Amino acid sequence: MKNMLLTTAAALMLASPIALAAHDEADAPLPTLEAVADEALTGDTVAWDFVEGVTTEVGPRQAGTEAETRGRQWAMQWLAAHGFENIADEPFEMPTWVPGETHKAAVTAPFPQPLVVQPLGGSGATPAGGIEAEVIEFASFADLAAASDGSLSGKIAYVSHEMRRAQDGSHYGFAGPVRWVAPTLAEQKGAVAIVIKSVGTDHHRNPHTGVTGSADNPLTIPAAALPLPDAENLERMFDRADGRPITMRLELDPRWIGMQTSGNVVGEIVGRNPELPPVLLACHLDSWWNAPGAFDDGAGCGIIAAAALNVAKTGQPLRTIRLLLAGAEEVGLWGSRAYSEAHIDEPIAVAFESDFGADRIWRFESNFRQTNPDLHARLAGAVARFGVANSTITATGGADINIARDQGTAIIDLQQDGTRYFDLHHTPDDTLDKIDPVQLRQNVAVWTQVAGILANEPRSIQTGGPVPSAPAIMGE
Amino acid sequence: MKNMLLTTAAALMLASPIALAAHDEADAPLPTLEAVADEALTGDTVAWDFVEGVTTEVGPRQAGTEAETRGRQWAMQWLAAHGFENIADEPFEMPTWVPGETHKAAVTAPFPQPLVVQPLGGSGATPAGGIEAEVIEFASFADLAAASDGSLSGKIAYVSHEMRRAQDGSHYGFAGPVRWVAPTLAEQKGAVAIVIKSVGTDHHRNPHTGVTGSADNPLTIPAAALPLPDAENLERMFDRADGRPITMRLELDPRWIGMQTSGNVVGEIVGRNPELPPVLLACHLDSWWNAPGAFDDGAGCGIIAAAALNVAKTGQPLRTIRLLLAGAEEVGLWGSRAYSEAHIDEPIAVAFESDFGADRIWRFESNFRQTNPDLHARLAGAVARFGVANSTITATGGADINIARDQGTAIIDLQQDGTRYFDLHHTPDDTLDKIDPVQLRQNVAVWTQVAGILANEPRSIQTGGPVPSAPAIMGE
Repeated sequence: MKNMLLTTAAALMLASPIALAAHDEADAPLPTLEAVADEALTGDTVAWDFVEGVTTEVGPRQAGTEAETRGRQWAMQWLAAHGFENIADEPFEMPTWVPGETHKAAVTAPFPQPLVVQPLGGSGATPAGGIEAEVIEFASFADLAAASDGSLSGKIAYVSHEMRRAQDGSHYGFAGPVRWVAPTLAEQKGAVAIVIKSVGTDHHRNPHTGVTGSADNPLTIPAAALPLPDAENLERMFDRADGRPITMRLELDPRWIGMQTSGNVVGEIVGRNPELPPVLLACHLDSWWNAPGAFDDGAGCGIIAAAALNVAKTGQPLRTIRLLLAGAEEVGLWGSRAYSEAHIDEPIAVAFESDFGADRIWRFESNFRQTNPDLHARLAGAVARFGVANSTITATGGADINIARDQGTAIIDLQQDGTRYFDLHHTPDDTLDKIDPVQLRQNVAVWTQVAGILANEPRSIQTGGPVPSAPAIMGE
Repeated sequence: MKNMLLTTAAALMLASPIALAAHDEADAPLPTLEAVADEALTGDTVAWDFVEGVTTEVGPRQAGTEAETRGRQWAMQWLAAHGFENIADEPFEMPTWVPGETHKAAVTAPFPQPLVVQPLGGSGATPAGGIEAEVIEFASFADLAAASDGSLSGKIAYVSHEMRRAQDGSHYGFAGPVRWVAPTLAEQKGAVAIVIKSVGTDHHRNPHTGVTGSADNPLTIPAAALPLPDAENLERMFDRADGRPITMRLELDPRWIGMQTSGNVVGEIVGRNPELPPVLLACHLDSWWNAPGAFDDGAGCGIIAAAALNVAKTGQPLRTIRLLLAGAEEVGLWGSRAYSEAHIDEPIAVAFESDFGADRIWRFESNFRQTNPDLHARLAGAVARFGVANSTITATGGADINIARDQGTAIIDLQQDGTRYFDLHHTPDDTLDKIDPVQLRQNVAVWTQVAGILANEPRSIQTGGPVPSAPAIMGE
């Protein structure tokens, strides 16, 4: 694992927030954590600056492409300009799929008209010029699963679902198999292609892409998502066709381009005691090709960076705060896995990530409520004033913090309101204008409060006991 | 002018609503107009059936294309199946522009990334492979107008605006020149292309197309619309570029395909006294290529057809109710002009159109408030229970009823709530799901009430006096 340390003029010219805090300390009392978090609630501009910057100056940054590389360079420069230390790009290799440029679909009979479509990540290509076949409709994943082997021979499968908005995003679990598994299943049953109702909740002409199949066992058939208006239109055609076959033409040219380089960007606010396991704040920096990735996950990276800088305003923290801006999350969590592999022997104290948009945090969860109830209660109590509820649910973390699960260490979930998330997730509409600055700042305030308590916690976060001296022991 | 009368099996098999009403008349009292309008408010399914049908079974139907022809055939069959009489397709010829298939834009420096774009109607094409040039930003149409001649030589002009949502849609007037006139102006000043901030109010990745230039004096340069998220992104790039030039690559392949046939679909509920000038209800049947035209204007055609059928439920009306489903409105009001030319010598009593979406009607206007105050007051009073306000504004009608202005006859405007209209207008998002069935039914109720009073009015609608006997006198 090669670390590419960044040394830019910007980094050298700008004082780090820690140095500034030390200076302040000589002159006047440092602000309290509570004051800094409260200030963030109405005044933060840092998280916005990050997400505005990466979406405007980089734009879409799909993993393994030149655009993702530019995204990492941009992020490292931003971190350096804001005084982070030990900034690095930790590269890794992964098989890379690109969407191509031709994304066409049309019903050819009995109601000929074009449809909007985009390929799912990992989709096969059609022959040049496209394919045309009868469409077989399935109202649900279960209906497709019940179809007999070979029954889709020569056909295009269409699979629907009834995903609904939910504050906790839980309907993604219900509808997700339509994207995750149905294409492979349709291929097994003989289909020549599959189109799905986008796994999403909005009614705009924006398909929701996302991974299907796997790099180890890629699809050979084309697999594409229709926006909800087009999917519903197709379903109405079945209702109105009186049994006449519905035929569709599909033309897609995605392809695999071999092993390409992605990377994880890291940076630190170095703590007073670097012997203590650090606090890991995570997000992911890559996006799909079809949007600049504001909600998913430029905002998350802005939130964690702003929170770390806010903690530093209260004085150098006891523990190091480490940022992980993971690469290649969308295409299969490659960055999260690579980070865990590279750093598995370096215990972390606790990890949490921001990767569910930019709407308000409404619930606090940890996985140490029973092993360290005092700290859990202190954290939950500290964020209550921001409208965050306590929870007995055990935090499991998300895509970007494999290392915490692999180490078996402490995890926190700061659950965001996901009501709007699947309106935007993996669509062209994931743009900066969707971010509500008021809710973004609430995220920064909550993250500041939680990160600040954790980074100054002298005892084991997982157990409340003394921190083990043996560094080989995982997760404190 | 050739009339192609439709005779379909469907038309022969189905009894006309007038026949049904006559049958009812023998058995039981006919319902009152008020009862029929009230029933429409909660129970109408006819308008929905029309707009669902035309958007599902035909889809996009741009003027002069095969799809528009299918739209006319579909509409004539629907009218016949619902018992309208004297159904015809009145064809006309017009120069026709088509959008092509390649609609690409990308910023190439200093922040390279793709942008979503669609051509404006009448746009020129780029050379194959596209053009790349520096972008010059104008914050408004006035700023572009102030640029000196030749100052855009070799450049791509970008023109912004500050359109806002308005219940009366009035901001279209403020922002419209950015689409209507700026491309021709930029061409005159030497620009090699122009991109505009879409003349619209939504933040989805949907460009708003629409006519620019004219068929008589077509643009030679490419002219395209960016969705608001992309336009705002471009503007942020100017803010962040520190004076570095912003360059863009643009590739568009629209073209003119010569004279093509469009047509106006007409149909009637024949009145008891065909000597009396008819009541004309209008909409337009064509849409842009990028959407099935649900709001603009499938809904309008459904509303007027449903209202005419409702009036017939109360018994055969005194005057004939004529429907005009105009062709080729979007591309330059060709159908409205052709209808006026063909029928200028056939006086109509009054005309009104539905062509502003499907949201609730909130205001009643006429152009005979001073010449026939009793009728104006009676109409305004009759629709008050549906939440419609009276107005002193003089109705002028819209795009589809040139004939009323040309004849100088009576006009009514049933103003719809346009708050959402420019979220959808001319975008891919103009799909059936955008229609609120509750508000659509309110439209049908109001139209039923107004059309029923007018179709049974024995005196001149414009003056309240006796209807002139000389048919050559325009507009009664």
